[in-house]
Amino acid sequence: DIVAALAPGGRGSLLAGKRVLVDAGPTHEPIDPVRFIGNRSSGRMGFAVAAAAAAQGAEVVLVAGPVALATPAGVRRVDVRSAAEMHTAVLAEAGAADIFIATAAVADYRPETVSPSKLKKTGGAIELKLVQNADILADVAALPGRPFVVGFAAETDNVEGYARGKLERKNLDMIAANRVADNIGFECAENALLLLWDGGREELERADKQVLAARLIERIAERYRPRGG
Amino acid sequence: DIVAALAPGGRGSLLAGKRVLVDAGPTHEPIDPVRFIGNRSSGRMGFAVAAAAAAQGAEVVLVAGPVALATPAGVRRVDVRSAAEMHTAVLAEAGAADIFIATAAVADYRPETVSPSKLKKTGGAIELKLVQNADILADVAALPGRPFVVGFAAETDNVEGYARGKLERKNLDMIAANRVADNIGFECAENALLLLWDGGREELERADKQVLAARLIERIAERYRPRGG
Repeated sequence: DIVAALAPGGRGSLLAGKRVLVDAGPTHEPIDPVRFIGNRSSGRMGFAVAAAAAAQGAEVVLVAGPVALATPAGVRRVDVRSAAEMHTAVLAEAGAADIFIATAAVADYRPETVSPSKLKKTGGAIELKLVQNADILADVAALPGRPFVVGFAAETDNVEGYARGKLERKNLDMIAANRVADNIGFECAENALLLLWDGGREELERADKQVLAARLIERIAERYRPRGG
Repeated sequence: DIVAALAPGGRGSLLAGKRVLVDAGPTHEPIDPVRFIGNRSSGRMGFAVAAAAAAQGAEVVLVAGPVALATPAGVRRVDVRSAAEMHTAVLAEAGAADIFIATAAVADYRPETVSPSKLKKTGGAIELKLVQNADILADVAALPGRPFVVGFAAETDNVEGYARGKLERKNLDMIAANRVADNIGFECAENALLLLWDGGREELERADKQVLAARLIERIAERYRPRGG
């Protein structure tokens, strides 16, 4: 039923029998037992995407960073904190997935050393040395029998140019880009998305994240082709 | 009515006519528009303290860092994000306060520079230079006509020794110390507090944060003496 399937937030069977893996939320990179480097991702977009995939009949696993959100109905949730934990959890599930939708705002860097006890104020300036985290998207896209991979890009500037570059560089099947600004994107209920794929683009206009997530899942279902060997 | 006043979470008039200023929650020190240095304070203890002070008749102002908590009934709330914003908001209110209860986990350090656009991955390791934030507790305690000042200390090690040192060094009237560990302290509903003051100590045993907050407010009301010149 095409009409029902296209209704915003509606239920359908566009992804019946498909296994969908979603990562969502921020990661927290520990500095010591109480301090961390985080980011302003609320996880709302990813949780809405997981719910929309389940509503279209998919079997959904949601790997979630530290967020204050309820698990969507019918979704299996794996909670993680750091980028390293998210990498481990996603790679453990990716082999069995048909589609991987990477909405998480994974930290690119982590502190080189983690203090086992709370750091004391020492006076003056200090240097925090940061080292790169593993690239979850690139590692999933390099798997033999890889899933169909959809990335996200949250940018403050040159959104389309950067997102197109990431699509190609990381060998993604599709990327959903959004501009981070006041009252849109991170930490708020509304968003707008620009979808890009090899040779195509489509703008999904500003809407509630649940409506957008339902539209995104419809577009992914249309463009999905098995990639697995 | 002593019995009603001492009932956990009960209402009373122990602080009737007093103006109580509470700071609560973490601070987020921006690195760029999406990344920040944060800490694992949930703000729950501070919000419970504000609610308990209001329940004892105080006029309460709550300066809150970024938390996902509802404002307690009868409390005036000022939202802030960074340590610098919290310093400004607290100092603006402290002159009029009879009692200042500093529960917030204020960042000691902030990135020296804040990037106006999202930082890109550059490869390899990077150094993040951090500089000290102003000390809110010390600055309030140094005010002419200062309020009665109650500090908090969340520690992983040597809790009493460090808290006693902070009480003296920052010239506080009382300090409430707690140990941060798994399932106690930050990001959880229960806590235990060790109260220290010049020449005295009292342990408040592990309990729900709302019960503990009510007991803490009773002890503050007992020990309160105007400090203002």
